[in-house]
Amino acid sequence: MEAFEVLLPLALILLLSKLMGLGAHKIGMPAVIGMLVAGVLIGCINYIPWAPLRQAFFGEDVKKGIAIIGKIGVVLIMFSTGLGTDLKKLKQTGGAAVVITLFGVVVPMGLGTLVAFLFMPGEGLLSWLFYGAILTATSVSVTVAVLKELGKLDTKLGTSVVAAAVIDDVIGIIVLSVLTGFSSGGENAGWDWFDPNAALVAIKIVVFFAAAIALGVALRKIFDIMERRAPHNRRVPIISLAACFFYAYCAEKIFGVADITGAYVAGILLGGTLSETPYVENKVDTMGYLFFSPVFFASIGMNLDFSGITPSFLAFGAVYVVAALAGKFLGCGLGAKLCKFSWMDSVRTGLGMMVRAEVILICAERGVTAGLVSGAVYPFVFLIILLSSVLTPILLKWSYKKEAAPKKPPLSPPEWGETM
Amino acid sequence: MEAFEVLLPLALILLLSKLMGLGAHKIGMPAVIGMLVAGVLIGCINYIPWAPLRQAFFGEDVKKGIAIIGKIGVVLIMFSTGLGTDLKKLKQTGGAAVVITLFGVVVPMGLGTLVAFLFMPGEGLLSWLFYGAILTATSVSVTVAVLKELGKLDTKLGTSVVAAAVIDDVIGIIVLSVLTGFSSGGENAGWDWFDPNAALVAIKIVVFFAAAIALGVALRKIFDIMERRAPHNRRVPIISLAACFFYAYCAEKIFGVADITGAYVAGILLGGTLSETPYVENKVDTMGYLFFSPVFFASIGMNLDFSGITPSFLAFGAVYVVAALAGKFLGCGLGAKLCKFSWMDSVRTGLGMMVRAEVILICAERGVTAGLVSGAVYPFVFLIILLSSVLTPILLKWSYKKEAAPKKPPLSPPEWGETM
Repeated sequence: MEAFEVLLPLALILLLSKLMGLGAHKIGMPAVIGMLVAGVLIGCINYIPWAPLRQAFFGEDVKKGIAIIGKIGVVLIMFSTGLGTDLKKLKQTGGAAVVITLFGVVVPMGLGTLVAFLFMPGEGLLSWLFYGAILTATSVSVTVAVLKELGKLDTKLGTSVVAAAVIDDVIGIIVLSVLTGFSSGGENAGWDWFDPNAALVAIKIVVFFAAAIALGVALRKIFDIMERRAPHNRRVPIISLAACFFYAYCAEKIFGVADITGAYVAGILLGGTLSETPYVENKVDTMGYLFFSPVFFASIGMNLDFSGITPSFLAFGAVYVVAALAGKFLGCGLGAKLCKFSWMDSVRTGLGMMVRAEVILICAERGVTAGLVSGAVYPFVFLIILLSSVLTPILLKWSYKKEAAPKKPPLSPPEWGETM
Repeated sequence: MEAFEVLLPLALILLLSKLMGLGAHKIGMPAVIGMLVAGVLIGCINYIPWAPLRQAFFGEDVKKGIAIIGKIGVVLIMFSTGLGTDLKKLKQTGGAAVVITLFGVVVPMGLGTLVAFLFMPGEGLLSWLFYGAILTATSVSVTVAVLKELGKLDTKLGTSVVAAAVIDDVIGIIVLSVLTGFSSGGENAGWDWFDPNAALVAIKIVVFFAAAIALGVALRKIFDIMERRAPHNRRVPIISLAACFFYAYCAEKIFGVADITGAYVAGILLGGTLSETPYVENKVDTMGYLFFSPVFFASIGMNLDFSGITPSFLAFGAVYVVAALAGKFLGCGLGAKLCKFSWMDSVRTGLGMMVRAEVILICAERGVTAGLVSGAVYPFVFLIILLSSVLTPILLKWSYKKEAAPKKPPLSPPEWGETM
């Protein structure tokens, strides 16, 4: 293949993703659904019996090129998420968010693992746990948009949901790193804590975080000096990007934890209190929404493979979807109730944290790549995203119906729809 | 290869390109020289006798991945150049710029072709012409920076140089498209105008421009409607990008003209009078300087191959460099003199137009890819960039020495140094 040949699929991905994303947004869905649908539509080219066309979109080298751009896309999404994670702010929100998250992680992860164990007893512990870990992901952007529209974002409920989502990301990434580490640690790793392999994996994970933090502190010092000399300088985002790629590469290649973990950790370390962070985040996000994110999401849609969906997997999938929604709703609702939220606010917290979008997809993709999760899980992950992002806004608005009139007219489109 | 493996070379490219670019800027060189040097430094890894390291940077799949990103980079550079080309403004500058460009294209192209013919008589007409065509490129960014510093940008000389550079791009791209068209038109194409193959190539080129303009007009109408509904909307840059990729792909694949021609034409058609153009240009440039351009320039440096430099090629190269500098200087100077510029201003015009940077590299790369130009030409192209960007500022400043003091202190760094 010549390099230019990747331009045609990229052009179609960008055009269709934007059109479908806008369409999804119009009917109140997250834009990510639109981008997935765009990928599925492009995937249909695979069934057109005209070889040159199939070759142009699904030739080996074209697929590799798109995979590389999609990989950069997911790395940038996680880097940006990390940059936006201000760990210091979490202290201000108090313990409620921590309790909500803990229950919101343990219950769906437990349910997901249980369902996987019951339906696929032959798969093994790491695999069952990964099915569970996927369900810990949350994406509260839709919830934030709804709460903003209702003028409830600055309430105790609103701040708790936002803070819990941040902690959720952190815990989720740790669970994912550990599972990925053990999955790449060899056949016998992870079963027996006295296994030297397992010990090695554990050491690697610890060393990764130690090395990442050490390098991060050094980088922050360098950036601090740069900032004082000349603010808003192009060198800061470029070197941040280089650091993000370096972290992602080392995380995967040297330490055996996921590349997205590396990117996320790089984001957290370079984000937060650094005064240039919003500038860097803005540049990274521009590259993301303009080019890399649509390619990542569409590439998942393009490579959907329904051949793995056997009748038994279908049964598993249906229960898995219920576990995803019920697990998060019950876990977070219980957590909120324990923190002395009212019954109504506990229900709302559960509803708000139930929404999934890009993070669950990223986790699922990670599991599929690691060989721990079947590619047949994707349609059910879509269903989880679809159902949660339809149900939550309707039910949340309904729960507030009897209260005061909205402070803002609901006409203004939620900011979120444009961020992807 | 797994997709994440491309992240390590990318990280090193970004870091070194920025550091070398800043270094080049410090000593008054264009940043592109720094990025090339970064590539050459990374290329040295190829000589380290440690296979895993070589594999990590120069494995087949890694090279392909970088080639794809570099291709997107060059396409974005040409798209951005096109977006910045306001054909309507050219009318205001009058005929001087046209005359300067015409001589500035014909003389170096003639000299380059002649030199190639004399030193490489076995190569064939298309190849000789391509060596000539490479020398038509100009990049007046350094000149603009110098004139700005001297407070001379708004003079007749300044506006003529800027306008001539724009026309130069347009003519250069037409010459390049025609040569590329004939080179992909088959063995016998281009020699005999009655050859049906040659006629087919000519028709293809005409049809390309007609189709491009037709689609461009339609797209402008759509963008006009979008703009009126919501300005500064993300859909405009995304769909522009999709159009750029589509143009580039079709230009190369269907019409046999260069992909960079397609991107440049897309830029011209979507640029100019469209009120969203600066917004789109800004987004495209962000992606370019932050990620894609360094990868393109560094990839050229990384793949330098000195094995093609035989003693006879060395002799050719030396004369070729002289032809590049003298051809542009004499051609443009003559054109300026014919337009009744003073002797001194004619010399200054020649000096100003003599500078080469990214465009000559892009043209050379195109010739090498098409198989018309030897890869051994790169070191000499570097020399042309290096010499012209050292000589022009010194000589231009010297020519103004006896005149009024500079209006602006020369401390502020030229804007240009940051745009790459």
